[in-house]
Amino acid sequence: MTRTTTTRKDVLQEFRRTEILAAAAKVFGEKGYEATHMMDVAEAAGLAKGTLYLYFPSKDAIYEATLRAAVSELQILTEDHIGRETDFAGKLAAFVRVRIAFWSEKQSLYRVIVSLGREAHNQKRSIALQRKVVEYLTQLFRRASAAGEIPEQDFEAAAWATMDAIRGVNERRVYSEGNTTEHDTRFLTEFLLNAVGWRSVQGGPQ
Amino acid sequence: MTRTTTTRKDVLQEFRRTEILAAAAKVFGEKGYEATHMMDVAEAAGLAKGTLYLYFPSKDAIYEATLRAAVSELQILTEDHIGRETDFAGKLAAFVRVRIAFWSEKQSLYRVIVSLGREAHNQKRSIALQRKVVEYLTQLFRRASAAGEIPEQDFEAAAWATMDAIRGVNERRVYSEGNTTEHDTRFLTEFLLNAVGWRSVQGGPQ
Repeated sequence: MTRTTTTRKDVLQEFRRTEILAAAAKVFGEKGYEATHMMDVAEAAGLAKGTLYLYFPSKDAIYEATLRAAVSELQILTEDHIGRETDFAGKLAAFVRVRIAFWSEKQSLYRVIVSLGREAHNQKRSIALQRKVVEYLTQLFRRASAAGEIPEQDFEAAAWATMDAIRGVNERRVYSEGNTTEHDTRFLTEFLLNAVGWRSVQGGPQ
Repeated sequence: MTRTTTTRKDVLQEFRRTEILAAAAKVFGEKGYEATHMMDVAEAAGLAKGTLYLYFPSKDAIYEATLRAAVSELQILTEDHIGRETDFAGKLAAFVRVRIAFWSEKQSLYRVIVSLGREAHNQKRSIALQRKVVEYLTQLFRRASAAGEIPEQDFEAAAWATMDAIRGVNERRVYSEGNTTEHDTRFLTEFLLNAVGWRSVQGGPQ
């Protein structure tokens, strides 16, 4: 096995890569995918176009990396917030809240993602990225079931349905005034807790 | 008030319009939206291009009419199947089953609809078309609540979440092997019945 050593060059490259992606997210959000050119991203990142190409071979590669960076940031936030909760209801509420609040703050980027998610190519990529979150959520459901908090069920299907419901709310928030993050979070959390049978196991109020 | 009289000409025009839309659904499904030209639709419908323009001014107009025709057909099927059910659980199961089975039969058209939903223009149109179904579903929930079958809740939000979960399943069915219509219908029906609190009111098994 080789030991991984981080050199000064690695650090600088990683730093610049992060700067490019932050600039790209901004440009994509403002101009949309089609109207964005490599030159716009280079300018926003304060780089020569040639330098940008050293980091990313194409606009699609930048877009994919932007998407992955956002998804990764969201996953870190999700795990952080869920980690602070002790019971399943709190964890599911945190999962819903983080995902609504995160995209609410990045609405212009979210609009680009939604608009691009529809092409077959992007659709498959989007399903692949979602699959990781679905696996995470499936584990959350499985542990809750092991702890007697929810009954046995098709946890993966429940995870997909949970993701679908959250995605729907987020998409409508982009195109209409909609409700507050708190209102949408509360409704969805209760809807989903019921859906996975949390109340019935707890024997809570009807 | 004027009396509506249906002339022989009206009947023929309506018949031809229906034929055009059936041909268009086939062509859009086979070629996708971008690659479809007015000429392709005219040929598939057995018409001269000039005649086609007497009915529809543009490809977008044909697409919109195709979409409306499909949504309208789906709504008639939905009401028919729901009308045969007596209780809320049966009605919701029918709603889910019809929507999965319908798009399963029209997968190539559904793929086009999904791929086009991406543009803001189409996204808004799609939300507007969905809104009518959401209203219908909201009424279904409201009546079930009045009959004591489910508790009071934000019925419209519940209707949107129901639509989102069904849409998610249908989208994944387009891009992956997936499960049988029956399996997906059963899972979603139970998930959604729980979500809107059907079991808890019925006091059924946990």
